[in-house]
Parts: sequence; structure tokens; C-alpha cells
Amino acid sequence: MTILFKNAKILTFSDDKIINGELLVKDNLIAYIGPKCTIKADKIIDCEGNLLMPGFKNAHAHTAMIFARSASDDLPLHDWLYDCIFPMEEKFIEGDIYHLTKVGILEYLSGGITSAFDMYFNPPEIVKACEEMGFREVILATSLKEPVSLVKERYINWNKKGSLISYNLGIHAEYTTPLERMKDISKLANELHAPVFLHIGETKDEVQGCVDRYGVTPLKLLDSLGMFNYGGGGFHCNYLSDEEITIAKKRNFNIVTCPASNLKLASGIAPIYKYQKAGLNIAIGTDGAASNNSLDMFKEMYLVSTLQKLTNNDASIMDGYDVLKMAVVGSAKAMGLDNCDTLSEGKYADIIMIDLSNPAMQPLNNIKKNIVYAGSKDIVKMTMINGKILYFDHKFLIDEDINQIYKKAQEITDRLKG
Amino acid sequence: MTILFKNAKILTFSDDKIINGELLVKDNLIAYIGPKCTIKADKIIDCEGNLLMPGFKNAHAHTAMIFARSASDDLPLHDWLYDCIFPMEEKFIEGDIYHLTKVGILEYLSGGITSAFDMYFNPPEIVKACEEMGFREVILATSLKEPVSLVKERYINWNKKGSLISYNLGIHAEYTTPLERMKDISKLANELHAPVFLHIGETKDEVQGCVDRYGVTPLKLLDSLGMFNYGGGGFHCNYLSDEEITIAKKRNFNIVTCPASNLKLASGIAPIYKYQKAGLNIAIGTDGAASNNSLDMFKEMYLVSTLQKLTNNDASIMDGYDVLKMAVVGSAKAMGLDNCDTLSEGKYADIIMIDLSNPAMQPLNNIKKNIVYAGSKDIVKMTMINGKILYFDHKFLIDEDINQIYKKAQEITDRLKG
Repeated sequence: MTILFKNAKILTFSDDKIINGELLVKDNLIAYIGPKCTIKADKIIDCEGNLLMPGFKNAHAHTAMIFARSASDDLPLHDWLYDCIFPMEEKFIEGDIYHLTKVGILEYLSGGITSAFDMYFNPPEIVKACEEMGFREVILATSLKEPVSLVKERYINWNKKGSLISYNLGIHAEYTTPLERMKDISKLANELHAPVFLHIGETKDEVQGCVDRYGVTPLKLLDSLGMFNYGGGGFHCNYLSDEEITIAKKRNFNIVTCPASNLKLASGIAPIYKYQKAGLNIAIGTDGAASNNSLDMFKEMYLVSTLQKLTNNDASIMDGYDVLKMAVVGSAKAMGLDNCDTLSEGKYADIIMIDLSNPAMQPLNNIKKNIVYAGSKDIVKMTMINGKILYFDHKFLIDEDINQIYKKAQEITDRLKG
Repeated sequence: MTILFKNAKILTFSDDKIINGELLVKDNLIAYIGPKCTIKADKIIDCEGNLLMPGFKNAHAHTAMIFARSASDDLPLHDWLYDCIFPMEEKFIEGDIYHLTKVGILEYLSGGITSAFDMYFNPPEIVKACEEMGFREVILATSLKEPVSLVKERYINWNKKGSLISYNLGIHAEYTTPLERMKDISKLANELHAPVFLHIGETKDEVQGCVDRYGVTPLKLLDSLGMFNYGGGGFHCNYLSDEEITIAKKRNFNIVTCPASNLKLASGIAPIYKYQKAGLNIAIGTDGAASNNSLDMFKEMYLVSTLQKLTNNDASIMDGYDVLKMAVVGSAKAMGLDNCDTLSEGKYADIIMIDLSNPAMQPLNNIKKNIVYAGSKDIVKMTMINGKILYFDHKFLIDEDINQIYKKAQEITDRLKG
């Protein structure tokens, strides 16, 4: 199966140019990018001058947590987590994660997100939902109920070439993980030459708790266990010390920032400009809908840029296009997705089309920056993953009845709340 | 002409309930809201359980400034204004404002904004664009080129009952207006019993400049001229002193906050929670696309709530629904639009439909808060102004060719940049 996109503007992220031309998808791969494709395609799509670019990569998610969206707004973090979220999660039964994950995937598709780095319970159910819907997913397993032997087994079995699914090592966070488990995961990381990911530096209290327990800050503690000898990354990173920034640089430790969630829970603003200057790779995530409440990369990108301008009192820093690159290439790098980070011949066809005829994109001045500064989910015209168009013109092109997906999620949500 | 909306959820803002029922529009007015309408309508729209609510009111705008969208990103405020915006504005010729305003109106329609409080040059051209497109507009004239006699004449002639257009008195800002003009506008306000609006407290430097010039802060200075004896309002209000807050309360002075613009230009965060506690009316505006870059009330609402949570270190404050009310009723109050602030029989039919089947709105937990926390322009299914549906299912229902509007705006923009 071949699909030819004609009359397109193309931003490949291989370089910083926007070219006018054509893009050919053959099966699940990009087969041609250039001025004029000579191959006769099975299907031709006239882009009418709209922009093709790689899909956004959501570098931190708890996709199935859509059940708690707006079930727990306007609460202090502690009450939100302990009085609302944890009691609901205790009521999960088999199949819940599978059904809930599907709603999150629909939201990703509608916002041009083509893959997620997903940390949540019951990975096999997440895998099933993603495979059925054709969504590219990087699983991060952190449950203490999963023995390290199982984690190892999955790491080996779930990282097959050509699959929509990949798998990484992780812990939930220092403050929720026994030292022995942290040591075991570190050992496994060194055995597998694998990076390790975790929540870190989300709140001041969390950092202080680690200092009280171990006498050192979290990243320093974990690095001393050898956890990041093969890289890794931290979700949130609102509070990393200068010493920890040095460790992060040394270990190729990826920063995954989630500004919308951090604002809503009053956790803080990550010093992204400082990390950028230190030469760290920066990725962007939405966190879960329980705290955010949306899974919307446009909201995150706007915040990543403008919050730094504000806190550094300098409107000229955090260039919009740099932030756009973080949401695509930076996130892909953190997630190990170098097979779909740019639009290039031979890479997976994870492509979105940006509607430049949306009024928020008019007139055309600086398209790349304006996606960050004026974009919203409303400008996403198409989402293609692995060569399949799953969303076009605000409609989902999937085999399932959307209303049945919603109905099931509502039933589960009502049970969890009850 | 009658249009009946059936099978709707309805949030009227007359109270805080969401009811299931029907809404009848007769010509440009709401004729019925209740469980079941017995009148036979000319047209029936099945809402399929989606939510009807009043449109958003954009309480601060420079609509025609879409020409500068992404033409001047990532610059310090001074360079942005003096090296980029002002030189472009000097090149305006007749008709430019008219054509540019239309693009902004399209953006409003796509985001559920049914009226704007618009401060810009050449009001007759703005009026022409709004009337042609059926958009409800509150004009604020502040150009020093317009003599006070003309301002008075327009105030009297442009505030006719039943018109889409209304008119208010204003000055651009203290720092750009000679003292004599401020005195003249104050005198006129007292003669007409009219409120006065202006930019105020946007930056620290602006406040300090006023103190250097006059020995007092801006709101205190202007109040001493009698400018706000019949009310008024300030755009931005990032830096009002406690003394000025007391004056604002006494004068029913409306706070119009524009957080996205303030972040992008690194101007500051308005202490909205403090103003709320002081009992001031709070309205929300987008500012112009030159600084924001979008005209998107969803972005603003999210920021109004979450920035206060962060700066006050308390995730429980600035309830999402309170912020939703600011964007509708609070803004309408500031703009003098008590004829379309709520959905009520006899009021203008300025109505939007929120698509609850958008994945970001699923499952249904707290709809009112979730519009603020997870909403985006993507959830706007319909925008009706004055009884006319101007936007439905992501399509504009206007008599003009959208591409011609864009083409004209691009030509103008290219000339202004050249």
C-alpha cells in the first residue's frame, strides 16, 4: 500500500527548513520526500499547502488515568492523591486499564500525538489497547508487584524490531520505592545496558524527604547505585540541584518536563532554560489526565516556552521552534524512538498534518514558532501512525465505535468513584 | 425564524446547574429554555447530549493585529514594540484594519468567542467588518488622532439598542496619553456618566514611570481626575498597589486579565486571587495576536486558574468553574453586555455548543471545571451570535470565501513587513 501526499509543506526536523514538495508512504515507512515523486501511488492526498511534520511524542503519561479527569480538581496535592486517586485505583478490576487507555489514545490522535511514554499498572492491558488501535507506545513498568525477573523478561521480549511497542526500565520514584528494589533495578540496568526512568524532583518536599532518609538528593543517591550508567530520564525535574545537573549531563539523563500538571498541582516550574544551557536533552510530557487534565502537547509547548520567559524575566529566551523540537525530537530521543523522530526515508510513517488554513495560523509569518505560540488541537488535520491514517478532519478512522469506548470508560469511572 | 435545540445539556449561568432540556431561539433572541418546548420550530438541531452555554466574551483585544502574529516572536518587549510592531503599524492604508479584523473574527468563531472588547485604530473599519460577519463587538477608541468631540459623537451614536456594536470611552494608557487628554476624557466620562477603560499596570516599568512623572501610581492619578466616577476597567493589572485595589473596589473598576500575553512578553502574573478576595469583578481577555499569539479563551482560562495556584502555592484555589464564569459573565459585565451574559429568555442568542464527545471531555465527571482544565478550541462544536449559526462542526457558515479573507490579510501583512 502506498500513499502519496502532494502539494505539501514539509518540516522534516532532519534540518530546520520547510520545503514544498511530496511525501510517499509505503506500508509503514516513509519511502520518499522531495520535490516530485515519480512512483505511482495507490492513494493520493492533496495537502492543499498544509504542513506535514513528525507527530508529537508524549514523553510522560499515565494514559489510563483519564478516569480521574475532573474527578478531583482544585484539591491540594496530598488530598488529591491520597483521598481521591489512590482509593479509586484500588478498585481496578481486570480489563479496566485496557478500556480506559483507549480513551486516552483517542485524545492523543486528536492532538497529533503519535506515541506515548506510558507508566501505569497492568502493562499487558496497555499493550493490547495500543496494538488494537495502532498506537505507538513505550511502556514503563514501575509496579512493585512486578518482580524484577518479570521486568527483565518483558524488556527482552517487548523490544522487538518493527513492533509498535517498546519497553523501558523504571521505578515510580525514590520516595515510593524500597532501597532494595532501587538496587535491583540498577543492577538489571547494568546487566541489560538499559536506561532507567522515574519521577524525580516534582516537589520540594519529595527532595527534602530523600535528603532526610539518605542524606543526599534523589538523583545523586540513585546515580550512586549505578542506576544511570546507561542513561535514563526524569519526569518533572522541577527541583534538581546544580550537582544533580552535572550528574544528569554526565549520564545523558533526559529531562522530561510536564508544566501543565505542575501548575495545576502548584508543584513548581522546572528551570528548563537552565537545563537547556547545561546542554541536557529536554523532552515534554503531558502527565496523566488526573492532574493536567488534558493530554495536549500544544498546551505543554506554550507553557514550556512562556514560563521560562517569565521566570527568567526575558521574553527573548526559549525560542518557539526550539520548544517544538523538544516535543518531537527531544521527546523521541528520551523515549528511544530514533526510528520515527524525523521525517526521513526509511523511518516509520508517524506523520501529522497541520491545518495552515486554521485562522490561528493566518497569516503565514513564522509557521514553526506559531505552532507553539498559537497552535491548539484544533489545527491538527491528520494523524498517521505507522503508515495508517487514524484521524482526519476531526474524525477518527478506527474500526471501533467511539461511543462504545466512551460508554465503557464511563461505566468503569462510575464504579471507581462509587 | 425559529431554531430549536433538542436533547441538550444547558448551562445558563443564571444559576450553576446543568439541566437537560431544550432551548428555542426566535430571530436573534432566546425564547425558551426548559425541559420541553411546545412551539413548532422552523429548524431543529439535535444536540446529542452536548452542552449549550453562553459564548465567551473576550474582554481585551486588538483584533486586527493578527498581521503581527509570529512576525515578532522571542523578542524583548521594547524591541518587539518599537522595532517591529510600531513600524508595521505606520504603513497602514485605508481598508487594512477592515480586512485584518475579519481573520481575527474567524478565530473568535472557531474558539466560541461571541464578542470582543476591541481597542484599535480606525473604528469605522472595525465596525464594518463586524457587521458584515455578524460579530458582536464593543469598540474602545483610544487614538489621540480622534478628537474628544468625535469620541462623544460616536458614544452617542454607536450605543443604539439592538445593534451588534457598542462603544466605550478609553485611553490607551497613562504612559502614552498627555495629561490634558486624560482630563478631557475624564470630563466626558462624567458628562456621559460613562465608564473608562485603559491598559494599566502591565509592567513594573510602566508603574514606576507614572510615579516618576506624577508622584503617584497610575490608577490613583487617574482616579484623582474623576476618570472612574462611573466605573471602568483596566487591561492587564499585573501591578496594582493595595491602595489601588481599594480604589478599584470603590469605583467598580473591572480587572481584565490577559495571562498568555503577559507570559510571552515576560511582563508578570496578575494577582488575580488577591483581586478575587478583594471582591473585584474579573474579566478575561486574549490581548492581540501580536503578543499572544492566539485569540483563544481556553488557553487564557487555564492560565488564570493554574498560575494563581502556583504563585499562591495552593492547588485548591481559583476553582475552575469560577474561572469559567469570569470568561463569560465577568467579561460580559466589564463590557456592558448584560444582554447576552447568560442564557435567559429575552436575551440575545449568543450561544456555543461544547462537544462532550471530544475525548478531552470524557468521561463526564465535572463538565464545568473540565472545560477550563481540559478544553481547547477543538471542543467548540457550534458558535451562534445574535441567533445566527456562524460556525458548526469546524466549518464557517458565513457568506464570504474564507480563502479570499486570508489572501487579502496575507497581502496586507507582506506589505507591512516589507
